[in-house]
Formats: sequence, structure tokens, C-alpha cells
Amino acid sequence: MTSIDELKSEEFRIEHDTMGEVRVPVNALYRAQTQRAVENFPISGKTLERAHIEALARVKKAAAQANAELGVLDGELAQAIADAADEVATGKYDGDFPIDVFQTGSGTSSNMNTNEVLAELASRALKAAGSDKVVHPNDHVNASQSSNDVFPTSVHVAATSALINDLIPALGYLADSLERKAVDFKDVVKSGRTHLMDATPVTLGQEFGGYAAQVRYGVERINASLPRVAEVPLGGTAVGTGINTPAGFPERVIELLAADTGLPLTEARDHFEAQANRDGLIEASSQLRNIAISFMKINNDLRWMGSGPNTGLGEIAIPDLQPGSSIMPGKVNPVICEASIMVCAQVIGNDTAIAWSGTNGAFELNVGIPVMAANLLESIRLLANTSRVMADKMIDGITANVERARFLAEASPSIVTPLNKFIGYENAAKIAKKAVAEGLTIRETVVAMGFLERGELTEEQLDTALDVMSMTRPPHKA
Amino acid sequence: MTSIDELKSEEFRIEHDTMGEVRVPVNALYRAQTQRAVENFPISGKTLERAHIEALARVKKAAAQANAELGVLDGELAQAIADAADEVATGKYDGDFPIDVFQTGSGTSSNMNTNEVLAELASRALKAAGSDKVVHPNDHVNASQSSNDVFPTSVHVAATSALINDLIPALGYLADSLERKAVDFKDVVKSGRTHLMDATPVTLGQEFGGYAAQVRYGVERINASLPRVAEVPLGGTAVGTGINTPAGFPERVIELLAADTGLPLTEARDHFEAQANRDGLIEASSQLRNIAISFMKINNDLRWMGSGPNTGLGEIAIPDLQPGSSIMPGKVNPVICEASIMVCAQVIGNDTAIAWSGTNGAFELNVGIPVMAANLLESIRLLANTSRVMADKMIDGITANVERARFLAEASPSIVTPLNKFIGYENAAKIAKKAVAEGLTIRETVVAMGFLERGELTEEQLDTALDVMSMTRPPHKA
Amino acid sequence: MTSIDELKSEEFRIEHDTMGEVRVPVNALYRAQTQRAVENFPISGKTLERAHIEALARVKKAAAQANAELGVLDGELAQAIADAADEVATGKYDGDFPIDVFQTGSGTSSNMNTNEVLAELASRALKAAGSDKVVHPNDHVNASQSSNDVFPTSVHVAATSALINDLIPALGYLADSLERKAVDFKDVVKSGRTHLMDATPVTLGQEFGGYAAQVRYGVERINASLPRVAEVPLGGTAVGTGINTPAGFPERVIELLAADTGLPLTEARDHFEAQANRDGLIEASSQLRNIAISFMKINNDLRWMGSGPNTGLGEIAIPDLQPGSSIMPGKVNPVICEASIMVCAQVIGNDTAIAWSGTNGAFELNVGIPVMAANLLESIRLLANTSRVMADKMIDGITANVERARFLAEASPSIVTPLNKFIGYENAAKIAKKAVAEGLTIRETVVAMGFLERGELTEEQLDTALDVMSMTRPPHKA
Amino acid sequence: MTSIDELKSEEFRIEHDTMGEVRVPVNALYRAQTQRAVENFPISGKTLERAHIEALARVKKAAAQANAELGVLDGELAQAIADAADEVATGKYDGDFPIDVFQTGSGTSSNMNTNEVLAELASRALKAAGSDKVVHPNDHVNASQSSNDVFPTSVHVAATSALINDLIPALGYLADSLERKAVDFKDVVKSGRTHLMDATPVTLGQEFGGYAAQVRYGVERINASLPRVAEVPLGGTAVGTGINTPAGFPERVIELLAADTGLPLTEARDHFEAQANRDGLIEASSQLRNIAISFMKINNDLRWMGSGPNTGLGEIAIPDLQPGSSIMPGKVNPVICEASIMVCAQVIGNDTAIAWSGTNGAFELNVGIPVMAANLLESIRLLANTSRVMADKMIDGITANVERARFLAEASPSIVTPLNKFIGYENAAKIAKKAVAEGLTIRETVVAMGFLERGELTEEQLDTALDVMSMTRPPHKA
Repeated sequence: MTSIDELKSEEFRIEHDTMGEVRVPVNALYRAQTQRAVENFPISGKTLERAHIEALARVKKAAAQANAELGVLDGELAQAIADAADEVATGKYDGDFPIDVFQTGSGTSSNMNTNEVLAELASRALKAAGSDKVVHPNDHVNASQSSNDVFPTSVHVAATSALINDLIPALGYLADSLERKAVDFKDVVKSGRTHLMDATPVTLGQEFGGYAAQVRYGVERINASLPRVAEVPLGGTAVGTGINTPAGFPERVIELLAADTGLPLTEARDHFEAQANRDGLIEASSQLRNIAISFMKINNDLRWMGSGPNTGLGEIAIPDLQPGSSIMPGKVNPVICEASIMVCAQVIGNDTAIAWSGTNGAFELNVGIPVMAANLLESIRLLANTSRVMADKMIDGITANVERARFLAEASPSIVTPLNKFIGYENAAKIAKKAVAEGLTIRETVVAMGFLERGELTEEQLDTALDVMSMTRPPHKA
Repeated sequence: MTSIDELKSEEFRIEHDTMGEVRVPVNALYRAQTQRAVENFPISGKTLERAHIEALARVKKAAAQANAELGVLDGELAQAIADAADEVATGKYDGDFPIDVFQTGSGTSSNMNTNEVLAELASRALKAAGSDKVVHPNDHVNASQSSNDVFPTSVHVAATSALINDLIPALGYLADSLERKAVDFKDVVKSGRTHLMDATPVTLGQEFGGYAAQVRYGVERINASLPRVAEVPLGGTAVGTGINTPAGFPERVIELLAADTGLPLTEARDHFEAQANRDGLIEASSQLRNIAISFMKINNDLRWMGSGPNTGLGEIAIPDLQPGSSIMPGKVNPVICEASIMVCAQVIGNDTAIAWSGTNGAFELNVGIPVMAANLLESIRLLANTSRVMADKMIDGITANVERARFLAEASPSIVTPLNKFIGYENAAKIAKKAVAEGLTIRETVVAMGFLERGELTEEQLDTALDVMSMTRPPHKA
Repeated sequence: MTSIDELKSEEFRIEHDTMGEVRVPVNALYRAQTQRAVENFPISGKTLERAHIEALARVKKAAAQANAELGVLDGELAQAIADAADEVATGKYDGDFPIDVFQTGSGTSSNMNTNEVLAELASRALKAAGSDKVVHPNDHVNASQSSNDVFPTSVHVAATSALINDLIPALGYLADSLERKAVDFKDVVKSGRTHLMDATPVTLGQEFGGYAAQVRYGVERINASLPRVAEVPLGGTAVGTGINTPAGFPERVIELLAADTGLPLTEARDHFEAQANRDGLIEASSQLRNIAISFMKINNDLRWMGSGPNTGLGEIAIPDLQPGSSIMPGKVNPVICEASIMVCAQVIGNDTAIAWSGTNGAFELNVGIPVMAANLLESIRLLANTSRVMADKMIDGITANVERARFLAEASPSIVTPLNKFIGYENAAKIAKKAVAEGLTIRETVVAMGFLERGELTEEQLDTALDVMSMTRPPHKA
Repeated sequence: MTSIDELKSEEFRIEHDTMGEVRVPVNALYRAQTQRAVENFPISGKTLERAHIEALARVKKAAAQANAELGVLDGELAQAIADAADEVATGKYDGDFPIDVFQTGSGTSSNMNTNEVLAELASRALKAAGSDKVVHPNDHVNASQSSNDVFPTSVHVAATSALINDLIPALGYLADSLERKAVDFKDVVKSGRTHLMDATPVTLGQEFGGYAAQVRYGVERINASLPRVAEVPLGGTAVGTGINTPAGFPERVIELLAADTGLPLTEARDHFEAQANRDGLIEASSQLRNIAISFMKINNDLRWMGSGPNTGLGEIAIPDLQPGSSIMPGKVNPVICEASIMVCAQVIGNDTAIAWSGTNGAFELNVGIPVMAANLLESIRLLANTSRVMADKMIDGITANVERARFLAEASPSIVTPLNKFIGYENAAKIAKKAVAEGLTIRETVVAMGFLERGELTEEQLDTALDVMSMTRPPHKA
């Protein structure tokens, strides 16, 4: 980002807009309105996400093409705009998008920034090609458009792309890693725990399978929301009526945009709904929050299972990635769990910011869009990166402490549970309580209390009942 | 709820459980474990939602039937339990479910409360019918079950039912009301507003159509989540392994439960995922939050449009329901909007409580289920009731101030927008600024600035361009 | 609450207000406006908190007295109103306050409910005493007041009272209980844990002392907020200007109110700030949230320390309060921890509802007050009850597993830490890693690696360094 | 931040730590542990806030000085560390702090980053000065410290500094601006609005005075929290016991740190409380949230008062900063209000992230500190910048539309309110309703209904009662 301080030491040129003249850095591709916005919003230093700038460029390209096809824009101008948009989409001019996220709530400043940069690039290209045509930011680049449909469309496009191309594959990658471990650990029997207290046995593989399922459900949640995220307001222009668009524009521009991006974009079914609120983004964010909550559970379990090495549960070993303490020598910590859980907290926080921004608007426009965009795209990026980091730097390297896990499984007084059907819940409870109180095994207690002697249980029944591995095999799935 | 104080003045009987004896009110249908829980949790005074008790009863009924079919429960006992469950489902014994929402996080206390009440009712019925069979809360009513699968299942059942039978119809009812107004108001032209500032015209019907669409999208959101809300952990028993269930139990019990409730319930695809977290409930709640945010927008718009009568926007009149002020005579306020927005705040708050509870658990069990249930079922109830109140007491009675709406539409300087294509954005801006500065109409300003005189615009083009109603008709939808 | 259904079967009388006639239950103390509100808001079934009704009554009493003193209300009427208010304050007429929390956002309906009930009671008393004077709800009971100052004042009064009289003592009670345990456990050495991994030793008493301090800080947080919670808008009437109040009213009415309630109430320093928002309530709620987060930490630690009995940490034993499982016999769970953490989730959710309601308003009035009141007063009540339940049913009965705690302390490889100063961090790390890898104690490893042999450490230094209890004694506090 | 890709093309040197060898960029000041962390956490690309790095450096400087004084560190080494810390504090080496915010939850990586950079800088300086002493990151720079006390201390220091030096002055600056306008607008009478509906008059100055008071209360809220934000855990080292510190260390190091920073820092009253949770940061954040909610109210009011120019309230004019629409020519929007409200949404979201991180820990350590730090310091920065932007670019330039404001004040039917005392609330209501229904003024209606004729009011009483300006003058403040 070109800071105001840097500007002070630069050479300037004079640009103008409908409010008058503005000094703009001499080499900037942008013009007056961008510069005004840079000066009006010295707030966070945070600019639009990379994916967002790309999406803005792609919208402009599709609009130029549709405008040319529908006869409201000269073909040569349209081509120049589309070519410039392709360049901007690559990221090479991101430095010319210096406006703060905390700007006008419609994103008009960033829309105009895009219009200005494309007008400049296209005009230069035309001039270089010998044309004397000049591209105007509003009359040409922004033709048949308004910030009010373009900017939200760009967010939906960027989010749809990031969900489909980044997050869903990353979640799949993580689920694959978990499922491999579910297979590896399918015979590692361990104590179940409910309320943190000793319960009947499970296998470590069952637990990892559950985590994998939880991650796959996250993919389902995203997919369930996508129809409303991929639905875009483009074509509604200023207030949803489509004022200043040629007939056929929305259908065509969205068709072109979908083709160019390879995304399942659709036109808003109701353009007034589509411009007046950003509920689709809120819904997307809420699913990210839900995924974050899933991740918290998984990471919490993993770090507890790996706790120790000597004073914790010690059922698994998490890979050592770095020294864990500046004072306690030799300490190793579950750092990926911690980083991941912090990501989850951030995603949940971002979701709150998005939800609050969701009611920042009235009538025909939500005016909290840039901050919704920044938070939503950051959340997707964080979850996607974290999914891969979790898989690569942790899950893949987890090993089971098989003996300790089985030892604990057999130590759980809840293994008395299968005896319910032979001797009833109340007798079984007496056994469990006595075993814990006297430090006996369940088997020892059963014998001591005379259940075999009295013939209430046979030795064979007892053997079968107390086999911890068989307790993990659900009869209904056998 | 039977309070502890009331108990003091009552007669008691002695009941016992695996921990010993307990004094229980002599007429209570419940027994020792319920009584312990009443005494352990004197926290909120809030008990389970009505719909939740019904769902618990229905789960018990289905379990008794499946147990009988699969040979693990005597048929006569099963029938007695099922009959008792039908009675409890009606609500007539709700007073015997006195346990606080803030109890053990698995809902074990409420599961045992249900087991005890059903055991008592079934035993009494058997005795009345001359049988000497006695029903045991754990060994019979709870057979093939655990609190850990029954209690969450009951929440999913209650929520699925409330969503399908209460909220979705109520949202439809509200959307219908809004759509009727969209038709009524289709020719009421008014000023659009973006950033709260004068924009190009829309019709009041378009706005109401947008609100209706927003509500219909709420229904889509619920439907998108239902597959994971209607998926139940029943059959997983203690830790997901299905320990102590007969083969075939989960499939059959869920089949019976689905038939009895008429709900699209399905068995958990992964019983370990299904018991270790309550992500499906969190997802449902997040969609309720999203609907609440939609409602906030609608109600905010309506109260602003109805603001006045003399110093506000005054575009619509909201029905007068009650005197609005204890000091300012004759004042009438948009009370339904306010009540609705407070409901939205509560639903959003409840969603936060649910999200936090979502990570209250470890390994094989979430232990924040009762509070998730209470908040989720309350939110559904609040939104359903509010949808109908909004329709009946407000939307249906809204009238348009047609003349004022048109007057404002024509006063908006943004009606200059269609001139862009004739004279360019920058000239149009000059017109708009001059009109506002000098208190002229756009037409007067166009004339004054000589655009007709210079032939840049014809009178006919100007007439067509400045027709406010035609600005609301999207060419692409013509 | 008198439900609408019940009304149907009742006898009615006709009441009127400025909008016309209304049928009111014949025995109701309230009149037309209350009845309208009952019918307008069939939303939640939740009515005002008990403490809130009392506070409304006390405000009315103080206003009647101030009005009489300042000559705007007949003394006999004022006395009758004050007497009626005293009765209402006791709670005996709570059934005559049937209006839903989700009502008009100013609480006008509940203010008028109070005015009507007091007018009725006062008029009856006057009549019974032979007077022919009649008390009017608006002209007399509400004299010099508006819902807009009375209702928020009542919330601040109720909250101030509940904080000072209920929550702060309850937190003190809990902290006392924790501090007693800190003393009991001062010599119980155990392994510290950071990142859940073995760290240098602490005493169990130090941990409980930390929890007690955390609770005491909660009291500080409440006290830090009280100046703005105890500051009330009374006297501002409709919009903060104090229209329709006699000179001297706000000072005097608040003086009387403070005396009657024994609370440190003060007059709003800026009556426009005081009516236009409810930031003081939001601040109070945010401190409750912060206390809830403290409680989460404490309860999480306790349930982990008590986890087991055989497969967990097992450092403490939490009292057994009730059977923990309907299927696993003999299981006992940390149910108070779970109930408490669910309370925390609810308090955090309530805080979110309050925060959202905090922006539900414009210009001279916040219109989300009833829902803020309901959530704030519930949160205070929940935290106060939970504090006492935690102390009585859990903390007081916790016992330490002294031997296991010491065994784990000595097993922690982090006890190598004091050797840093003798042999440097890097050598110490080698010792710790070798000890864990080979299952040796730190002492054994030091010996095996030749540090004594080579004279880098003396036996005495080693003894001193590895004494786990001395590691818990901070030299700077010695 | 030096990305991994850049590293690939760079020259490397080999560093080692207790886990082995690591390739580090040849020019990096940091060493092995920093490099490991860079590679372990490729998550967000976000690094520590500038203020945070400075605070870390200042903690290290104070520690070096205290260590030298207390005899555990050679004076020459200590001086070299302190000098290096002074340099780092200036920001010139921020590029050598490349670790992601989403790292180990204790901030150990960033603590070690600081230790490594300071060790390198100090060692170089010693070598340049001809010394052969070498500074070790753990044994010297980190002497008497642990990440577990240093890192949270650094957050408290940075937050205390930012609150005292940045935010409080910025809030004062904003309040000053609002108070100047309160004076300017003290005679601008306007309609009050409650429930958005016409109420009795206020002055625009009273409204701005209320906003200023609201902002000043924000300062009070921060000050009320500061005692717990300025309290630091330094001296507790690994687990709060102060292991490996010399006697007197915490008192002295904090004294030095307070002196160096000029901040009112104090030692933790309970070092176990102080390390086990970060409640003080959560409290600070919650006050920032509360301030954000205040800001939302102010900005919402301002943009509504400035709405129009022709179809809104139009009571004030907000400065024009930039063209408001890419399609609607001449449009100007309240962009600072929008940017500010987006900041508020972000601050509220950040607070949520902080609250969730608040329970990310167990026993002796919270492990969500880096993300808490990033969000808290960002929030302070955002609010401070926004306060100044609001004042400079909006408040200072607001002008009143005096005539329109008075016109609306006189048009409000609520100006009937002062007649209550002459003719009663019910008669006054009849007047107001008739006036609105028939489009009459209140005065006209009073006359038409015969109140003067019948002598119930004198003309003089009516004149006095209906004077809108006098309605804004609270008698109790006269």
C-alpha cells in the first residue's frame, strides 16, 4: 500500500473528478476518486484481499464484454477494458489498490478504484496501439453497472471461488488424513470418556473416523450454503431496478462471468432482496463458524490425548515441531492444536463482525460490505491454510501409544456395563463402586462378590462381557 | 415446577437409587434420581421446553417397541411403557419434569426423569390391569439406550419438529402477507435510498417483494440444514459403539420414531461424530440467527418508512395498536417492529449461547446439551410466534402514503441518472449538484443549463428519462 | 401469567384508554393499556423479572412522594400511591403484570401496567378510606414522569440492587470457599501444566488461591462498573429535557429512591446521554460475561483435575452428587462443573443479546430495553445462584489425592528446570529428552549422563534443585 | 514478512537449537527457533503488531537490567542486551519478527524470536567493541524469565500504552469536537424522536452534548479497567511460582519497566491468577466493544439526521468528502459514518475472538495469547484512528439546517405535551390525534376544539406551553 507518508515525498500529477482537482502520485494508475478515498480513510492500513481485487477485475471484464455485445459499448474500448482486467486479475497491479477496508460501506471507493485503474490501463493500451480513443471510468468501465451491484457481486464471486477452489479441497485433504489414521488406529482400543470420566471402550480409529466425518460435514455445510453465495446481484445497478442497463444485460453478464471464472454463478432471483442485504455472505460465514467449532473439538481432543508425557493422558504422540519453552528444557507442546484453535477463535470473531455488519444498511443497500468481505475472505483463507497445516504437520505424524491406551481401557470401571443384561444395572453399579473404592479390577470384584459362585454369571459369559475390544464393535454394524 | 420450598411442606415417600435413599414428594411420579437433580441444581427455575418433553417420551416409546420386537424386552412391559409415553407426550405430566435446564450436561438427569416417570406410570397401569410385573427405569425403560444417545436425539427430534411444523409454516405465512402487499403496492413509486441518501426510484411493491424473498430464503436456509438436524445418534448408547444394543436396533428404533412423529429422521452416518458433538444443532441455530438478521432489516425499514407522522419519512402507515407514550399524548409507535427486533437480539444471543456450548465437551460427549436445547427451541418458538405477529398485527394492516411517496421520488436528485447515457456522468453530476444547491427540480436545472437549447437532449428524451415509474421497471425483466 | 386462553373463560369488564374500549378480566388490577399489550405481544410467555417489578414500584413511590413535596400532586393521592407501591414491591401482585418481555422497546407497556395497577390499588384504598378521590394512571401515578425515564431507571435500580445485594455477596461466598481450600491444599504439591504438558510443580493450594483471586477480580469488575449502572435517567421524562417536571424534581426523586432502596443511586450527569442509550447496562453485562469466562476456566480445571477415576488425571475428588449414567453403572460425573459452564454459556449469550439491543434505538431513546433487562437480570441471578451452588455442592467437598499429585509432580520432566543455572538450558534439555525417551527419572538421567561424575553438579545441589516442593516457593515472596 | 518462497531463493546459514540444525536466511538476525516457527505456521501472513514488538523489547531491557542488579547476569552482557532492546523498540528491526500471529498459544515463538534477535544484536555489538563475550538467547536474554510471564506481560504493556497514549487522547479529541458543536448548536431547536416517532423538542446542541458525554464515558470505562490491564505477570516465570528468578526480581523488573515506559504498571497480586488466564485483556476488550456500541449510536444518528438531501430528515449537513456513486451523479454519502460503523463491527468481532480465546487454556497457562494480542491492539488502533477521523473529517464540518429543524420541531404533534397539566393527558391525546388526522397544527386544533373558548386554557398559557424552545429547557437545570 502506498502510504500517505510515501506520497509526501513523491511527485504528483493533478487529476479531477466531479468534486474538483486532486493531487495523485505521478506513477499511480488510479485517479482522483481513489486518491480522495486514500486520504479520507487513514484507519486500518488493511486493503482488499487479493482474491477480492481479482474478482472485481473479472466482473469488469464480463461487463465490458456484455456491454459490447448489447451495443452499449464500443467493441474496441470493451476489448481494451477486458484485457486490462485480465492483467489486474493476475495481481500485478495490487499496489494500485491502496484504499483502506474501512471506507464507504458500499465499496464505491474500491469500485471506482477499479474503474480508474482499468480506464488508465485501457487508455494507455489504446494509445500505444495508435488509437485516439479514451476510456472513461464511469461512462465506459462502469457502464451498465453501479457500485451497488458490482461490489457485492465481487464479494460473492471471490467467496464462491475461495470456498470451492480453496476451502473445500483443503477440508477434503484434512479429512483424508484423518481417515488414513482411522484405518491405522482401527485396532487401538482405548477408554471412552464422557464427562471426562471413564466410560466404555472405543477404538482410536473410531475417534479419528468421527473427526473425519465432522470435517466432511463441514463440506456439506458449505455446499448447502453455496446456492445463495453464488447468486449475485449484478444487473441490479443502483437500487435493484437495473436502471441504465440494456435489456438482457444481467443474464448475459453473469453468463460471461460464470464462464470466465468457472464458478456456478446465478442471477439474483429477486434483485431487491439481492441488493438490500448481504444475507448470503452472513450464511456463508455462519457455516465457517460452525466448521471452526468442529475444529475446536478435534484439536482439543488431540491435545488432551497427547498430554503428558508423564502427567497427562498420553494416549497418542503428536509430532515435535519446535522447542516448547524458553525456560523448561526439553518441553514440547501441541502447537498446531493451539494455532488452529486460535484460528477458530478468529473465524468466530470474524463471523461476529460480519453478522453485525449484516444490519448496517437500510432500504436499498447494505453499507457494511467491505468489512464483511475482508472478514469472510480472511476466514476462508485461515481455515483452508489451517486444514492443510493440521494434516501435514500434525495428523499425518500422530502415533498411538497402543499399550497405554489398552491399559487404560481395561482400567475403566465402565467395562462393567455389559454385565447389566446378566445381573441388572443396580448390581453392576455395586461392582463398579466397589472396584474403584478398593482398587480392584472389575473381574476381581465380580469374583469377590460371588456372582460366579452363585451361578449368576458363567466364567465364559464374564470373559466375553469383559473383552474391551468387543465392546467397541457395535452389534448393529457387525 | 415443584419448588424446594413447596417440598418442605409436603408429605414424602422414600425412594432409592444406587447411591442410597432419597425423600421424594409423596405424589410425584418421579423417583430418586429426579429428586437428587432437583436438589442439586437450584439455579434458574427454567425447566425443559414442552416440545422437548414430548420428544423424550416419543423416543422412549419407539425404544420400547423396538426392544420388544428385537426380543430384549417383554411385550407387555413394552406396551405399558409405550402407552405411558403417549400420555407424557400430551403434556399432562409436565409438572413431573421439575429439573432445571442447568443440570448435568448430558441431560442424564432429564433422561432418568423420563425413565422414572414412565416406569411409575407403566408399573401402575400394569398393576391396575392385574399384572404383577414391575417396570424398572434403567433395565426396562432405558433398555438398549443411554442418556448419551437418547437425550441428544430428543433435542434433534424436538427441533426438527418445531422447524418443520412451526417455523417453516410461520415464515410462509409471513412471506404470504408480504407478497400480498407487494402486489398491493406495485404501483406505488417512491424514492430509493442507498446510504440513507436519495437514490433512483423503486416501487414500494418491489421493496415488499424483496422482504418476502428474504423470508423465503430463510425457509431455504432451514431446509438446507435439516438433513443434519434430522440425523439422530440414537443407537450409539454410551459412547457411539452401540454397546448393550441388540443387532438391528438403531435402524428399527429410528424407523419407528420417524413413523410415530412423521418426521424425516435418519440414523447418524457416523455414530462417533454423532455423539461427540452437537454441530447439527449449532448449524440449525446459526440459520435462525441468519433469519433474525433478515428480520432486523425488514423491521428497521418498516419503522423508518412509517416514521413521523410529521417529522419522519412518512411513506407508509403502520397500524396503531396501543397508546405509545405515558407522557406524550396521542403518540403511536411501531411496537411490533420493536418487539420483533428484540426477538432477533434474543435469537442472536441464544445462538451465541449455543455456539459456546458447542465446545463444551471432550472425546465421546458434548456436555452442554440441555442449554443448547433450551436456547434452540426457544429461538424457534420466538421466531415462529413473531412471524405470525408481524403478519397479523402489522404487515396486513400497512397502508401506503401514495402521494407523499411519489412526491419524494420526484424530489430525489438521483432521477438525473438516466441522463448519463445522453450527456455523460460528469454533466449529469453538475445538474444534480446545481439542483440541490439551488432548490430546483432536475427538469428545471436541465433547462436552465441549456441542454435542450443546445440540442444535447430533446424534450421527448427528457420526458422519458425523467419518468419516475419507468425508472423502476428493469428493462431486462420487461 | 394470565393467558389469553384463560381470559376466554373469564368474566370481563370494560375499560377504556385514549384509543377506545377494551375488555379486561373482571378481577384484574390492570386496565386497558395492559390488556392491549397482552393481546399485542403473544410471543414468549416470559414476563418481567421479579426484581424488575419491585424496582418499578419503588420508582413510582419515590415519584409520588417527590411530586407531593414539590406541589404537583395532592398529598393524599401521593400517599395512596406510595402505599400501593409498597405492596406491589413485595411481589404479591406479580400476577397482575402479565405483559410479555417482547413488547414495545421502551417498556411503555410495563410502565403503564404499573401505573394502572397502582391507580387501581390506590383508588380502592382511598375509596375504602371514605375518600371520593380517584387516582389516574397518567395524570397522577405517572406525574412528572415518562416511560422513557422511568423504565430504564427501573432496570438500573433492579440491576444495581441485584449486583450489590445478590451477586457480589455470592461471589464473596464462592471466593471464601476457594480460599479455605487454598489453605487446606497449601502443602499438596502437584505437577504444573502449561499447554496441557508437564511443567514445573505448583501446589494445589496455589491453584485454588488463583481461582479465588480470579473470583475476587470479578467483584472488582462489577464495582468498577457500578458508578455508571447506578446512574439513572429519572427526571429526564420524554426526551431528556425534563419536560413536565417541576423544578428540583430529579434531584429529589432520586434522593428518595436511593433512601428507600439503600442503593448508591445518582442522577444522570447528562440526561441526553442517559436516555438515548443504555450503555451502562451493556457495560454491566460485559462484566458478567467476563466473570462467566473466569468461571469457565475454574470449572474446566476442576473437572480435568477430577477426571478418572482410573483413566484421567485423578488429582482431586469432586463430591458424588448423583448417579452419572443411565447405562454405565457406578459412573459419577462432575455435574456442578457442567451446570456452571452451561450457565456461563447462557450469560455470554445473554450478553450478546444485550449488546445487539444496545444499538436498537435512535435519537432520544433506545428501544430494546425490556429484553436488555430480562437478560441482564437473569444473568445476575444465574451467576449468583451458581456461585453458591459451586461452593456448597462442589468446592467445599473437594478432597486432594495427595499421593498421586506428588507422584505426578516428581514424574514431570520439567523438574529439570532448576538445573539451567548450573549447566545451561541446552544441557538441561538433553537431560529431559533422554529421561522421557528412556523412561528414567531426571535424577537417574543426570547421574547417567555423568554430570555428578564430572563435577558439574554436586549431589547436594542436585538434591536441592530437584526438591519439588521448594520449586513451588517463589523466592521473591519468601 | 519473509515468505517461505523468498527463502527458497536466498542464501542460508545453519543454526541449531535443542532439536537440531535449521537453515536460516543468511542475513536474518533471528535464529533456529524463529525459523522453525516461520515454517510451522504458514497460516495468515499477519505478524505481531508494531506496539507489541516494542513492548517485548522493553520487557527484555528491564529484565536484563534487573538481572544485572540482582547479580544473575554479567553487567556488560546486560548492557548490550538493553542497548539492543532499545534499538528493536524503535521498529527498525520489525522485519526480523516474521512469525505468524497464529503460532504457539503462549507466544513462545515470538518470545524466542525476541531472545534470538537480541542475542544476535548484542553479541555483534560486543564483538564490535572487542569483547569475546557471547549472548545466549535462553541463558542470558531470557534469564529469570519464561515465555509464560514475558509474553502476556508484553501484551499488557502494549495495551496499557496504546490505551493511555493513543485511545484516551483520541477519545478526548473526539469529545472536544462534539462539545464544540454542542455549543454551536445550543439554540438549534428540533424535534425529538423516540421510537423514530415525533416527540417533544430538543436542541441539536443537547444531542451533540449527549454524544460527547457518551464518548467521555468511554474514557471512564477504560480507566475503570486499567488497574487490571496494567497489572503484569512478570516474575512468575514458568507457572507462576517464579522458579529460576532471584529474590526481589519481580518487584524490581516491573519498577524498571514502569519507569522506562512511563506506564502505571504493577505486579500481579496473585501470580497464579495472573498466568492462568488473561481476564484483564478480556475486560479491556469488552470496554472497547462498549465504546464501539456507543460509536454506532452516534454515527447512526448523524447519518439519519443528514439523510436526504430531499427525501430524508435533512436536519444537518455532513461534509462532502468524495463522490458517492459510480452511477448516480452528484450523490454524496455519509462515508465517515459508514467507515466508523464498520470499525465498530470489527471491534465487536475482535472482542468475540478475544472472549473465545479467553477459555483457550488450562491450569497454569492460557494458550490463546497471540490472537488476543493481535485483536486487542488492532481494536485500540482502529478506535483511536476512527475517533480522529470522525472529528476531523465529519464532526468539525457539520452544519445545521436551522430552519428545517425548527419547522419540524413545530410540526411534531408531541408539542401538545405541556398541555397535560392544564387539560389532562386524555384531552391532550384527543388534540394530538385530531391534529394529525386533519393536518392541523396543535394550536389550530386547540382553538378548533374550543379549549380557549371554554376557558380551560388562556391564550397566554397556550403561547407559553407551545413554545418549542422552552420545552427544551429542563426546569430542574434552569
